[in-house]
Amino acid sequence: MTTSTTFRPVIAIHGGAGTITRASITPAQQQAYRDALRDVLQGAQQKLAAGAPAEEVAVEAVRLLEECPLFNAGRGAVFTADATHEMDACVMRGRDLACGSLAGVSTVRNPVRAALALMEAGGPVFMIGEAAERFAQAQGCEMVARDWFSTEQRLTQLRTVQAAALASGREQVALDHTAQSQTQAAPLDERKKMGTVGAVVLDVHGQLAAATSTGGLTNKKPGRVGDSPVVGAGTYAKHGVVAVSCTGVGEAFIRGSAAHTVAARIELLGESVDQATAEVIHRVLPPLGGDGGLIAVGADGEVSLCFNSEGMYRGQIGIDGEALVAIYANEALAPA
Amino acid sequence: MTTSTTFRPVIAIHGGAGTITRASITPAQQQAYRDALRDVLQGAQQKLAAGAPAEEVAVEAVRLLEECPLFNAGRGAVFTADATHEMDACVMRGRDLACGSLAGVSTVRNPVRAALALMEAGGPVFMIGEAAERFAQAQGCEMVARDWFSTEQRLTQLRTVQAAALASGREQVALDHTAQSQTQAAPLDERKKMGTVGAVVLDVHGQLAAATSTGGLTNKKPGRVGDSPVVGAGTYAKHGVVAVSCTGVGEAFIRGSAAHTVAARIELLGESVDQATAEVIHRVLPPLGGDGGLIAVGADGEVSLCFNSEGMYRGQIGIDGEALVAIYANEALAPA
Repeated sequence: MTTSTTFRPVIAIHGGAGTITRASITPAQQQAYRDALRDVLQGAQQKLAAGAPAEEVAVEAVRLLEECPLFNAGRGAVFTADATHEMDACVMRGRDLACGSLAGVSTVRNPVRAALALMEAGGPVFMIGEAAERFAQAQGCEMVARDWFSTEQRLTQLRTVQAAALASGREQVALDHTAQSQTQAAPLDERKKMGTVGAVVLDVHGQLAAATSTGGLTNKKPGRVGDSPVVGAGTYAKHGVVAVSCTGVGEAFIRGSAAHTVAARIELLGESVDQATAEVIHRVLPPLGGDGGLIAVGADGEVSLCFNSEGMYRGQIGIDGEALVAIYANEALAPA
Repeated sequence: MTTSTTFRPVIAIHGGAGTITRASITPAQQQAYRDALRDVLQGAQQKLAAGAPAEEVAVEAVRLLEECPLFNAGRGAVFTADATHEMDACVMRGRDLACGSLAGVSTVRNPVRAALALMEAGGPVFMIGEAAERFAQAQGCEMVARDWFSTEQRLTQLRTVQAAALASGREQVALDHTAQSQTQAAPLDERKKMGTVGAVVLDVHGQLAAATSTGGLTNKKPGRVGDSPVVGAGTYAKHGVVAVSCTGVGEAFIRGSAAHTVAARIELLGESVDQATAEVIHRVLPPLGGDGGLIAVGADGEVSLCFNSEGMYRGQIGIDGEALVAIYANEALAPA
C-alpha cells in the first residue's frame, strides 16, 4: 500500500464508551466532558501542526487524557478489587509496525509515554508488571506514588460495586462511565460501563499511529489484562491502511481481534474505513458480548468514530480547524 | 463459514524453530527429539480418537511438550537474565473464539492447563503475574516450586549467553534451539535461537483449536512477553477457518499479527492454508525480523508446517495413523 496522494492530517480521540445518556448526566457534567475533549484535541493539534510524527501526536493526546481525572486512564484510573490501580497502555506506528505495550503498571505517571519509550528502545515490545515499571524508570519516565492515581470518585465507585456484589452474592466488575459512576444512584449493571482512552492520528507526512491507555475495570481481579495493550485487539496501525484504537469489553475485543480485523478488511477486501469499522462493531463483536466502540483513521484521513453502546466520548480535529466533540449516539460532532 | 462436509481429524505440533542443522546436533540428540515428538503426538492422539474436543487435545499435546525438558516450555524452560523462569501460555477454541492467556507465571506446573482453566472460567481471558498464579491455584492447577522448571542445561545456556554479553559489551538475549544450546561450543547468535511449543487440532467433531506455551528467551529482561499469549499474534483459532500456533522472534510476530493474518487471508481472500501461511512466514514477517515458523490446520484438516529458519521441530498425526515428525528444512515428515 502507498500513502494517498491527497490526505487530510487529523487527530481523533475517544474517552471511553458505555451507557452515557442525556438523562444520566447533568448539563454541567456533560459540559465538563466536552471541554476536556476539546482541550485534549487542541493540545495535540499543536504537535500535529508543528509536524510531529503521528506516534508522538497520538501519545500526546493520550497523555492529556491520562492526566484528566474524568477519564479512566492515568490519574482517575479505576480501582481493582484490591483497591489498587493497574494500568495498561500501547502505541503503534504504522510506518514500520513498531509498537510498545505495557500491562499491569502502577507507578508510571503516564503509561502511554512508557509504551512509547518501549517502542523506541527497539527491544521487547510487550512488558508487564514491576519489570515494566523498572524499564520505564530507567528510560526517564516520571514515576509517582501508587495513590497518585486515586480519586475520591473512583474509590466511591469501587465501594458501590463491592457493596452491590455483596448484596447480590456474585462477583461483579464494572466498566466505566455510567449514571452510577456520576451519581451513585442508579443500579449497578456491569455490562454498561467501560473506560479506556485512545487516539488515532494521520500526520502531515501521511503517516498513521494509534495509542490506547486504560485503568481497567472497577473491582476487576488484579492481574486481569484487557484489549488495550494487545496489539491487533485494542490497538493497531499499518501504513497505507488504518490506525485503530478501541474501547469496550476487552475480552470480546481480544477474542475478535477487533483492531486487526478492521485493518485486514480494508487491506484485503478494499473496504472503506466506515465499512470495516461498522462490520466489526455491529457484526463481529456483538455475538461475543463486545459492547463498546473504536476510533479509526484511514490513509487519506477518513475518520470513523463507531460504537454500539449508548454513548462514546469522542472528538476529532484537523491541522488548523476547530475541535469537534460528541458524547451520545445519534449526536453529530460539534464545537464544545 | 461452516464446517467442511469432509474433513480429516488431525493434530500438528511444533517444538520451536531456529538454527537446527544436521551438523549441529549429534545423531543421538536428533533421535531424542524425534522420539519426544512422536511420544507427544501419540499421547494426544489417544484423546483425539476418544472424541475429546479440539481444545482439550491441543492442551494435552502442549502439556506433554511442557513436561519434556528438551523443549523450552514448562520443565526445561530457559532462564531470564535474573536466573528466574517466566512462562506464558495461551489456548483458543475456534467454535466460539473462547480463549485464555497467561503471561509471566513461575509456579504453575503446566501453564497451558491454567490457560484452559482461564478460558473455561468465562471471565477475564488474559491474566498476568502472581495474580494469574493465584487464579491457577484456585482452579486446582498443580503448583510447583520455582526451581522445578530448572535444568542444568538451561542454566549453562544462561551463563554462556551472559558471558558472551559481557565479552561483547552489549545486551544479548537468546532464543532457543541451536548448536550452542547443545554443545556450548558454537558462537552465540541471538537471532538463531527461538523456542516455544504449540499444537493445532481439528477434532472428530470438525472443530478447531490452537495452544501455545513458552519459556521465553534465555537472558531476556524479566517482564518481557512475546507473541505466544497474545491472541492473534502467536495463537489463534476460528471455526471454519484455521487454527494457528507460532514460534519465533515474538516481537515480529506481534507486530505482524501473524496468526490472525493467516486466518484473515483464508477467510477474506479464500487462500488455502498453505498459501496463507507461506505469505505470512515468507513475506510478512521477514521484513520485521520475523525468523521462525508456525503450524496451522484448516477446517478440512489441511496442515501446514511452515518456517523460514533452518529447522523447526514438528510433527503431525491423524486419528489412527502413525506419528510423522521432522526437524530440518527440506526434510519430509517420516516416522520417528
